[in-house]
Amino acid sequence: MPKIDPARLMGDLDHLRSIGAYKTGVHRPTFSPQDIEARRWLVGRMQEAGLAAHMDGIGSVFGRREAPGPKMLTGSHLESQNHAGWLDGALGVIYGLEAARAIAEDPDFADCGVDVIALCDEEGHFGSFLGSKSFLGVLSEEEIDQAKNRYDDTPLRDALKAAGLSDVPRVKVEDGRYRGFFEAHIEQGDTLISSGLKIGNVTAIVAIWQYKLVFTGEQNHAGTTSMKRRRDAGLAAVRALAEIDRRFPQICGERTVWTAGRIALEPGAPSIIPGRAEVLFQFRDADDAVLDKLDAELRAIVAEANAGPCEAVLEVMGQSKPAVMDAGLQDAIDASAEIHAPGLCIRMPSGAGHDAQYLARIMPAAMLFVPSIGGISHHWTEDTAREDIILGAQVYADAVAKALKA
Amino acid sequence: MPKIDPARLMGDLDHLRSIGAYKTGVHRPTFSPQDIEARRWLVGRMQEAGLAAHMDGIGSVFGRREAPGPKMLTGSHLESQNHAGWLDGALGVIYGLEAARAIAEDPDFADCGVDVIALCDEEGHFGSFLGSKSFLGVLSEEEIDQAKNRYDDTPLRDALKAAGLSDVPRVKVEDGRYRGFFEAHIEQGDTLISSGLKIGNVTAIVAIWQYKLVFTGEQNHAGTTSMKRRRDAGLAAVRALAEIDRRFPQICGERTVWTAGRIALEPGAPSIIPGRAEVLFQFRDADDAVLDKLDAELRAIVAEANAGPCEAVLEVMGQSKPAVMDAGLQDAIDASAEIHAPGLCIRMPSGAGHDAQYLARIMPAAMLFVPSIGGISHHWTEDTAREDIILGAQVYADAVAKALKA
Repeated sequence: MPKIDPARLMGDLDHLRSIGAYKTGVHRPTFSPQDIEARRWLVGRMQEAGLAAHMDGIGSVFGRREAPGPKMLTGSHLESQNHAGWLDGALGVIYGLEAARAIAEDPDFADCGVDVIALCDEEGHFGSFLGSKSFLGVLSEEEIDQAKNRYDDTPLRDALKAAGLSDVPRVKVEDGRYRGFFEAHIEQGDTLISSGLKIGNVTAIVAIWQYKLVFTGEQNHAGTTSMKRRRDAGLAAVRALAEIDRRFPQICGERTVWTAGRIALEPGAPSIIPGRAEVLFQFRDADDAVLDKLDAELRAIVAEANAGPCEAVLEVMGQSKPAVMDAGLQDAIDASAEIHAPGLCIRMPSGAGHDAQYLARIMPAAMLFVPSIGGISHHWTEDTAREDIILGAQVYADAVAKALKA
Repeated sequence: MPKIDPARLMGDLDHLRSIGAYKTGVHRPTFSPQDIEARRWLVGRMQEAGLAAHMDGIGSVFGRREAPGPKMLTGSHLESQNHAGWLDGALGVIYGLEAARAIAEDPDFADCGVDVIALCDEEGHFGSFLGSKSFLGVLSEEEIDQAKNRYDDTPLRDALKAAGLSDVPRVKVEDGRYRGFFEAHIEQGDTLISSGLKIGNVTAIVAIWQYKLVFTGEQNHAGTTSMKRRRDAGLAAVRALAEIDRRFPQICGERTVWTAGRIALEPGAPSIIPGRAEVLFQFRDADDAVLDKLDAELRAIVAEANAGPCEAVLEVMGQSKPAVMDAGLQDAIDASAEIHAPGLCIRMPSGAGHDAQYLARIMPAAMLFVPSIGGISHHWTEDTAREDIILGAQVYADAVAKALKA
């Protein structure tokens, strides 16, 4: 059984934490100087581990092991959300690297190979899963042409040029090379931490169905327009959201979540009846039947809103598919956890999106979660106990090893 | 009975409309070059009418008639909202000027005097009723020091200096000079136009009770945070607003209006549970008892919201008093309307604020509304039929005359 090196593992994570350090977290947005520094450093660490490594034309860092026998792909992403946690992404990359090293060092796995990849821009500073899409061969040159930094509008092409990547080819997955893909991540929720559990074995990555609801009424004077005569778009939005709040709990699944993240009223002045309201609304579930039921209910609520004084329009922004994790790889994680953390592993869906949902399209995929203190993520206070990081890495490396020999 | 001159009246209104013309309306914000031009032109027109006229140190244009007998104050404001209607404000000023001229020309009123004032910044580009407050003597130098243009932050002091008003004294109302104040305005609603009525005789200017509701929850990941664990500030706001929508109709008055003009969620991203929600909410009524009842209900709803997972705080932004119009002056308007537009006058509250609400604090005050096509206001499409403007001016002048002789 391959043995990880806790000091090497934590040394790598601590070094990454120092690149773009922000309070106790990191600020390392895609293609920032700090992000580039982290990617270059990773290339070096991969090479030190005996991997053939380089940064490809979309910014993903790929380390490849020449090996005659079974091969596994591991990894996650390196960039961070703005002013966010030190482990989100980095943990999955370094777990992969440490597994690659531990397995290479184990004579029982002499013919096996573990590749490691840090897929660029999972956090979506420039686009949506650019690295995963590129690796799968589904990212077009046109999408790259149009992609811009969502905060400062820097074109992705300019960022790639500044990073010296304009003429570097993009790596595409080699057909049939891998038995599967493993990704580790902090949980981003409190299921593990609040139950004293140590390993989350992901069953599926939920689908996100994202909508824009637009209510159009009539902008008017808030003093002189009688309640009867009003066509208050803001009120129409409130009524529809209150209906969602009333009806979704009656039909949702056990772990369904739904969120209205933005409500914007126009013109947004204290004494003007809103003429237009825009709501960003989403729900997530791992079950297609539940997703369909919620979609139908939402459409019914919007139809009922149209019977009122305002027009209501539902626009679908995205309806992804749940990404089911591979049964065999899940068994490998369970078996490994049973050795290193007996009774402390639970199967659970992932409520957040991850690169594994793309990789799962073309190969068996699995995800392993470690506990996150307070369930916090996307914030610089995100953290995981060092003993939990080390335990998780051992479970991970062993699961990869078991899957290689399966 | 004084007779207005329709050509002179319409000529003045049409000339004002040409200063800062925007489509069929005007763009004449306070202390813009166009606004200054309009004020200077008005000084000249007042002087031509035999009034001692000047622009005072806050920008109000005051025209004073020397007369031994009873005197009445008339007027409104000259500046417009941005890209707004040609009559909002201007109508009230020119009605006052035309009444002053018609009454001065009538030998029966040789001892009477009608003063005219265009009170600066009723539309609130720099502050709240600056001209009215200054005229009443309740505008402090400190308030002027702090006032800024709400769009471009130009200090009011700079605007006054640019207009050459820095060293000009501010006019204060002369105690005991007036029998009352008359203000005319377009209705800003559709009560008159939709009923074929010609004159609105205002009973009271409603009070506006303005609040900020702040809901504080916990910003978190929209995918990984279970519904049970969430403290969604946006949802707390929706629930409170839905309660208002359910309960206010059961306790409101006949003409109460309430409006949530702004809902802002933080951070306002599709996949982040809002940690903070801010709602601007107001209601208006002319009845103190109704206002108190609504305030108590709102406080109960906020208290109930606090029993939920988020904190809810109610901040009072303003609670004005209803301004009751004078019974004698209302009778004068009724009597005049009965001559010129028999059966076509109705008593009604004003749902919008006007300078008359300030003047009513120190003297009898009255307001007369004329029909507004489509009930539109604060928009460049605002308009009133020319025959309705002329009819309203005659009713107005005669009402002022009746009140002078009462």
